Amino acid sequence: MGSKRSRHGLENAPIVAGNGLIDRRALLGRGVLLAGAMGTGGALTGAAAEPLTDAPWSLEQGAVLPTYQVASRFEKPVARTLSNPKNEPRTSHARTPHHLLAGTITPNGLHFTICHQGGTPDIDPDKHRLVIHGMVKQPLVFTLDTLARYPMTTRITFLECGGNSAPMFSPVPLQESVQALHGLASCAEWTGVKLSVLLEEAGVDPAAKWLIAEGADVSGLSRSTPLKKAMDDAMVALYQNGERLMPGNGYPMRLLLPGYEGNMNVKYLRRIKLTDQPQMSYYETRTYSQLLPGGKAYRFYFLQEVKSFITQPSHGMALKEPGYYEISGIAYSGAGRIAKVMVSADGGTSWAEAALQTPVLPKAFTRFRMPWRWDGAPAVLQSRAWDESGAVQPTRAEFVALRGETKTPPNVLGFPNQHYNSITSWGVGPKGEVKHVYA
Amino acid sequence: MGSKRSRHGLENAPIVAGNGLIDRRALLGRGVLLAGAMGTGGALTGAAAEPLTDAPWSLEQGAVLPTYQVASRFEKPVARTLSNPKNEPRTSHARTPHHLLAGTITPNGLHFTICHQGGTPDIDPDKHRLVIHGMVKQPLVFTLDTLARYPMTTRITFLECGGNSAPMFSPVPLQESVQALHGLASCAEWTGVKLSVLLEEAGVDPAAKWLIAEGADVSGLSRSTPLKKAMDDAMVALYQNGERLMPGNGYPMRLLLPGYEGNMNVKYLRRIKLTDQPQMSYYETRTYSQLLPGGKAYRFYFLQEVKSFITQPSHGMALKEPGYYEISGIAYSGAGRIAKVMVSADGGTSWAEAALQTPVLPKAFTRFRMPWRWDGAPAVLQSRAWDESGAVQPTRAEFVALRGETKTPPNVLGFPNQHYNSITSWGVGPKGEVKHVYA
Repeated sequence: MGSKRSRHGLENAPIVAGNGLIDRRALLGRGVLLAGAMGTGGALTGAAAEPLTDAPWSLEQGAVLPTYQVASRFEKPVARTLSNPKNEPRTSHARTPHHLLAGTITPNGLHFTICHQGGTPDIDPDKHRLVIHGMVKQPLVFTLDTLARYPMTTRITFLECGGNSAPMFSPVPLQESVQALHGLASCAEWTGVKLSVLLEEAGVDPAAKWLIAEGADVSGLSRSTPLKKAMDDAMVALYQNGERLMPGNGYPMRLLLPGYEGNMNVKYLRRIKLTDQPQMSYYETRTYSQLLPGGKAYRFYFLQEVKSFITQPSHGMALKEPGYYEISGIAYSGAGRIAKVMVSADGGTSWAEAALQTPVLPKAFTRFRMPWRWDGAPAVLQSRAWDESGAVQPTRAEFVALRGETKTPPNVLGFPNQHYNSITSWGVGPKGEVKHVYA
Repeated sequence: MGSKRSRHGLENAPIVAGNGLIDRRALLGRGVLLAGAMGTGGALTGAAAEPLTDAPWSLEQGAVLPTYQVASRFEKPVARTLSNPKNEPRTSHARTPHHLLAGTITPNGLHFTICHQGGTPDIDPDKHRLVIHGMVKQPLVFTLDTLARYPMTTRITFLECGGNSAPMFSPVPLQESVQALHGLASCAEWTGVKLSVLLEEAGVDPAAKWLIAEGADVSGLSRSTPLKKAMDDAMVALYQNGERLMPGNGYPMRLLLPGYEGNMNVKYLRRIKLTDQPQMSYYETRTYSQLLPGGKAYRFYFLQEVKSFITQPSHGMALKEPGYYEISGIAYSGAGRIAKVMVSADGGTSWAEAALQTPVLPKAFTRFRMPWRWDGAPAVLQSRAWDESGAVQPTRAEFVALRGETKTPPNVLGFPNQHYNSITSWGVGPKGEVKHVYA
């Protein structure tokens, strides 16, 4: 199947780093540099001509169009994995299957969800209210109808749980998929009302410095946010990828704090109270005070710092044969735009710059791609991102020195540490099998 | 409820065109100019304090997280409308409910679908093949697995049926919603393989000028596309908003020709044949040769030209009371980026420039917004878009003079004309009711 074309094209590929990384510019333009390099399209001869006959679905009436369409029955494996499928009285996680997705938008059905103690509430939107009170001139109450009268704004931004990637604190690399390791981050287009507009209508007391946001679900999660962030780019989000929020993502409204850790983006938002100090609520003191190796802790850790990981290939996949592959992944930073992603195929010995899919938006997923010729020998794939603030993903050695590891038994649940943003490494074995390694 | 704040704020609003259009810059920054102008947030006093008590969903365990989440049961009305709910042997349309959506991304469940004679096929992706043949050096056959080896690209682009808005050819304004009138256009993030890469691997005969694309569903739709477009920005699309294509949108693969009329973006793509002339297939000669008033016809009409329409408020809605509203809508052009959208509240006598939601992407939906003070008197709302090629949406008078009207009885089905891109007008009556009018 085209092996002559394959070898010919690959011999001419412009190699720019160890173990077969190809100049990203091979991906630009009309693909001339790579045409003939893949050799994966089969020549249409003999038995291969079979596809020119009609398949059963070409000969029979199809299904009626639904009012709300869903994925094909063949896509059942493209699903969120659940940490609490019996809805026991503890936290539930539903993780995004990054290894099965492409692009940068997470479809609403597969956006990650975390519910603290209680599952997703069944809120009647006509009866839901948002109250703004505390250190304001005039407390206000809003319905969905009154919020619809306000100016709307739209932006694409990621959300990430502060505990995403926590299994990477394990002293040994857990043999888990990118979904298990990094599935508590997703990216969507959100539309709603800027929080600053609502706060200014209520009239902010000049002495107010914080706000306490509280959800209407049974967990009663509440979190403190600096007022400065609220007046910057915070939003009361009403729509997710065009339609109303999903029940697992805060229906009918949530706080959206682009770049800040997920749980601060309070779902089912019902109250915002302006105060002169943070609340030090249950989840703030118990869960979201970041522990440090020396026994100290960060009191708050708002920002989701610059991060990237390779989604294809990744743990659990297998490369079928030597030849051309595209290394593809996601990069993002709570501090702004991604400036650069470097990729290594030799465990960090040499690096080459990946192509970034445009538009590169601030605080949003950016898809990066790297053309690669796998020669069949073992390789270690890594990605490392920089953001426009100048921040860079730390190496694992740097990260562990500062933030420590977790001594608890290695499994994907129950890691007390948060905000892992170091490098993820995928080892490719001689048979093409891909495993999670530390390098 | 805040009527004093309301009147005070609105008196200071910077009016820039007739019937209360406000300078779009009032929407920028922290919203100071509009704070206090809405007066729709209720003061929290007396009976209004009720929302501070717990609702039922704040007191009971919620639902288990699903592996694939769906909209709240309260969002049932947010659905596609079906022209052929019994799947009779004729064309089926499922229209996007623009008046209930926000932002620019159409969620996959609500992306429009048209199926010519046959509904949606149930294709086994492992058995589906794409063949490239005809005037090429080496015919090739691709599976989903082999296509996954090729470089991918991602872009946000709209798709629109050439027959979208056809009810606007009626000599009288049909009293139909924006969904019925303009619901055959949607916008998504698509990921796939550039067609040029596959064609170059097959080796294009220099004498080839066209390609014939054919689908695997029972309708056997095939369309001719100039090879120049194929080598420009055409894609074999595999993913839609991150997940595999919806069954109604071409699962497992479709041709994507950004900016070209919907049916050319052949779904269930199974064959691409390179030729030196167009095919003049059944649908090309019967349906997609655009009739003109003088008895002549355009042989082909590929481009979806610059267009816009207001989605909120729109036909069927009612403004509750005089005061501040946001006029919001969608603009797009198959020729590139939207350059400008002007809005009128007095039927075209005076105009003001709308705010465009960034990023403004080529051949993609652009959300425009216009702050407006409705004084309670009748008004006619219109939008008019310009694109970066310099093209402008025609007035209705200009459009009808060139393209004619349809003499058939007024209903939303069965209009033989295509490519309506003139202005849509919504009349606001003295009680706030919104109707479709010609102005």
